[in-house]
Amino acid sequence: MIIGLTKKLKDDYGINVKNAELFDEAFTHASYVNEHPKEHLKYYERIEFLGDAVMQLCVSEYLFKRYPSLPEGKLSRLRAAMVCEDSFSKFAKECHFDEYIRLGKGEEKANARNRPSLLCDIFESFIGALYLDQGKDKVVEFISAVVFPKLDMGWFDHLLDHKTELQEYLQQNGDCKIEYKMLDEKGPDNDKTYTMAVYADGKKIGEGVGSSKKNAEQAAAYQALKVAKQ
Amino acid sequence: MIIGLTKKLKDDYGINVKNAELFDEAFTHASYVNEHPKEHLKYYERIEFLGDAVMQLCVSEYLFKRYPSLPEGKLSRLRAAMVCEDSFSKFAKECHFDEYIRLGKGEEKANARNRPSLLCDIFESFIGALYLDQGKDKVVEFISAVVFPKLDMGWFDHLLDHKTELQEYLQQNGDCKIEYKMLDEKGPDNDKTYTMAVYADGKKIGEGVGSSKKNAEQAAAYQALKVAKQ
Repeated sequence: MIIGLTKKLKDDYGINVKNAELFDEAFTHASYVNEHPKEHLKYYERIEFLGDAVMQLCVSEYLFKRYPSLPEGKLSRLRAAMVCEDSFSKFAKECHFDEYIRLGKGEEKANARNRPSLLCDIFESFIGALYLDQGKDKVVEFISAVVFPKLDMGWFDHLLDHKTELQEYLQQNGDCKIEYKMLDEKGPDNDKTYTMAVYADGKKIGEGVGSSKKNAEQAAAYQALKVAKQ
Repeated sequence: MIIGLTKKLKDDYGINVKNAELFDEAFTHASYVNEHPKEHLKYYERIEFLGDAVMQLCVSEYLFKRYPSLPEGKLSRLRAAMVCEDSFSKFAKECHFDEYIRLGKGEEKANARNRPSLLCDIFESFIGALYLDQGKDKVVEFISAVVFPKLDMGWFDHLLDHKTELQEYLQQNGDCKIEYKMLDEKGPDNDKTYTMAVYADGKKIGEGVGSSKKNAEQAAAYQALKVAKQ
């Protein structure tokens, strides 16, 4: 058994592990299994295969529901940015999963514990183990705490250009004048909140709040799009 | 509303559609929406985005549980063969989904209704609609009737070489003599059933049935692997 893992999952994420063997498997690299042939251990690859598909669905469903007017192309780009080695390795590190991986000596020496591809694998295999142990709702609960807040933190804003989308939408049947105006500015210099409104031919069609004028404009455009497409 | 679609789903698959609009969306191509601007229709791409991920998970989970000793590489190859345009377009055709697609006139003329890429899309968007309307269990029920039986029908046998896997497994710690022998042969010439057994160093370790000697050998090797890896 991997020491401290079930306690950590309970303390940090409220996960009451039922079958600890699944999580042991999820955190065990093939190099460790090869060095301990008598223990008949399993390594993470099969569970990772499942976890990858679990993440694909949970993220897809969340994006589908959160952005009801975002076209498929943008949903796909957003999903690809969230479900990828770069993101998953960061999530694994943030959860300190790297500290619990069972590695062979050679891989340990080669610093595999900090290798993004391995961290990504472990994040996926953890998700696979959680899914098998507790079902999809618990996975959604976990990634609602660890993954989805990154959307609000702006990690993927470069893929979510609502202003361009609004412009394309409003101008598809002819010209239309689009303007953004600041309605409000609050808070101290290092923690400001802006409220911006968007106007089409002088009529206010959306309003949004953000930590920068740019973010507030994006939020306003997003709201306008939602209303326009209803 | 697409005429006959909900009745067909009820009659053929026992699906009691709750929200028919979801299925209308799932069977509507962008070209049809463009030709009917006043109806404010939606086309299938967003639902297809979701359905693709639903299929990935349902197939992954099924393969993971059905083949408890198959390594990740083979699971991935099998999944890729099942979750692909070629397979999905065949499933869509088999379900006669092609007859219900709403297409624009130009696409109709260009024979898009029989285009594998479109049939594949429609199969995925149907799965997405079913998932949104009735949840994952109902999707699993549907693909248990339409998709999974293809495994027993041998569609993917070329990817499931249990004989090679058994040989690799048994000979990993030194040489071992593997033999296959026919135990039984039944039925008329055009509908024969074979029973084959596999022996390791003279000891019987598995038995399998199939519509050809080759299939029965594969089944015997699969059973032997399952026992050996317990």
